[in-house]
Amino acid sequence: MPKVVNIRSNELCGFIQAVLERLSVPAADAKVVSDCLVFAHLRGFDTHGLPCLAGYVECLEQGRIKPTPTITVERPMPWAIRLDADNGLGQIAAHRAMTLAIEAADQLGVGAAVVRRSNHFGAACCYSMLALPRDCIGLVTSNAMAAAAPFGALESFLGTNPLSVAVPALTAPPFVIDMATSEGARKKVRQALSLGTPLPAGWALDKDGNPTTDPKAALEGVMLPFGGMKGSAITLLLDILSGVLSGAEFGGRVLSVLTNQQRESGNGNFMLVLKVASFMPAEEFKGRMDEELARLRALRPARGLKEVIYPGYKEHFTEISRKEQGIPLAAAVVEEARSIGKRHGVVFHG
Amino acid sequence: MPKVVNIRSNELCGFIQAVLERLSVPAADAKVVSDCLVFAHLRGFDTHGLPCLAGYVECLEQGRIKPTPTITVERPMPWAIRLDADNGLGQIAAHRAMTLAIEAADQLGVGAAVVRRSNHFGAACCYSMLALPRDCIGLVTSNAMAAAAPFGALESFLGTNPLSVAVPALTAPPFVIDMATSEGARKKVRQALSLGTPLPAGWALDKDGNPTTDPKAALEGVMLPFGGMKGSAITLLLDILSGVLSGAEFGGRVLSVLTNQQRESGNGNFMLVLKVASFMPAEEFKGRMDEELARLRALRPARGLKEVIYPGYKEHFTEISRKEQGIPLAAAVVEEARSIGKRHGVVFHG
Repeated sequence: MPKVVNIRSNELCGFIQAVLERLSVPAADAKVVSDCLVFAHLRGFDTHGLPCLAGYVECLEQGRIKPTPTITVERPMPWAIRLDADNGLGQIAAHRAMTLAIEAADQLGVGAAVVRRSNHFGAACCYSMLALPRDCIGLVTSNAMAAAAPFGALESFLGTNPLSVAVPALTAPPFVIDMATSEGARKKVRQALSLGTPLPAGWALDKDGNPTTDPKAALEGVMLPFGGMKGSAITLLLDILSGVLSGAEFGGRVLSVLTNQQRESGNGNFMLVLKVASFMPAEEFKGRMDEELARLRALRPARGLKEVIYPGYKEHFTEISRKEQGIPLAAAVVEEARSIGKRHGVVFHG
Repeated sequence: MPKVVNIRSNELCGFIQAVLERLSVPAADAKVVSDCLVFAHLRGFDTHGLPCLAGYVECLEQGRIKPTPTITVERPMPWAIRLDADNGLGQIAAHRAMTLAIEAADQLGVGAAVVRRSNHFGAACCYSMLALPRDCIGLVTSNAMAAAAPFGALESFLGTNPLSVAVPALTAPPFVIDMATSEGARKKVRQALSLGTPLPAGWALDKDGNPTTDPKAALEGVMLPFGGMKGSAITLLLDILSGVLSGAEFGGRVLSVLTNQQRESGNGNFMLVLKVASFMPAEEFKGRMDEELARLRALRPARGLKEVIYPGYKEHFTEISRKEQGIPLAAAVVEEARSIGKRHGVVFHG
């Protein structure tokens, strides 16, 4: 088998949807989840696509995630949505919440949504970018299982707490932040240990709380959020918005689909949608965004770089190219998908 | 003269107000500006208090900032405020904009304001924290003169772009982020050069774009935003919100009160106020905040630290202590204030 297999996005989408349907997820919901996983691949976030399926499948098989959740929606204010995900797949609740927030913003200029009792929702840009065709700025965040120590602490408390913010432009590729707020991932530390390579500075503390680049010492210590004290503050803010304000778990108590054996994961999300026309005509704003991004692109690049790019720029062209030429999947990922498919009577045409 | 002079906050406030009034700033506006500068000292941000006065005074003396601006307020949506600061002191416009945003949030659950044609507004927490007594979350940001290169670039483009977010709690000191998004300050690089000490990692690139801790090489190169690529993305987002969306200058074109010789500074601000009761009862939210912050405080501290604290914790106690015991000012700052006072016939009782 070749090391990389190329698959068309609609083929991949159909496969994921069929697997989820075999696990009693209704067709429309299965489509939302598979669209989200495939969109992550299209944007180049290959960790947030097909590799997530195994965890979801296991949770659905074992009844740890509900295939047919009863999602309840409250609207305390015309622009504010409170959603209870009923421990269903995170994508279903997040997509619903963001759709409602965008509808509110379309009418009232602003919309916001909080989600509680949810699960892993995939790549945050799947939702923030829904705001773009409506000339809105979309902000989406989630909390997650404790994975990093706040600044000054020696115990995990903060999750990877993703943040995505999408801002429309006129002709330039849109500005889209999609980032984990942890600096590094524990699985990459294990990789470094087996390869015998040091870690980048700022990833971890050893068991005494000293900064370390030694993978072994890092595994005995704690991982860190991005950006030192300032990044830690922002990561904690994301837990406050998506956990405390939403009614979800917070403060280190969220679980992941891999560890929620005793109780629900309890993920929370926060979403904010601002219609740019609430502040200035959309065309004017988008023209100014083009100008902002063009000025940035025109800066002299640092050594070793051909050009200066901004968040979402590279992903924009990856999306175009992968839509045309298909998504390259690593052989191990394909192998796992085939095995999931076999178990549920779905053929993987990768 | 002693190295540090202690001054009561009301004394300091009276002095700054009197100086500004001598420069034709109306009493109420002068009070807003002096309250803001003094509040920065109370919170321990001594760079954002009295040391700012000299620049403001010079601009007022030379007609580069208007003492009596005609501020115009538009309200494109009931919750959205667009304010033109008419090149007045930044505090006057920011205080007005935040007050209007909070009033909107009180009524509608959400309020937002953008400010254009403004100037340096002091410490951002002066405005974000106004949201706290109304059980609102306040977010305030500003852009600023180009001071740091975006990730991958070798030219200054991003400002120190401050971000403040204030979140109320029940009995715990409130969570208050107030941070510059630049990693280090150029004046501290000059200080390091004269002391012969190296810079912390992550502050600067040399003229070729290589990371450096050598102050001399840093001065020939560029400063960096906090948090590498992720921090750079957030800093750029703050310029988009406070510059592009507001109608202010953006993309490296904001000037400072020290450099706006040819034209207005063109600062922009963005403010967002969310009433927590839009999502859950305020008491419940604040109780959950106490729980979040207590869990964080209970974490094991990293080596060398006595306790784990969160943004706003230390500043809360500094504020209490300085309100009681006065504000310690460095002798050089007092000297400069005396000289400003002398020029304008106001006695500094420090």
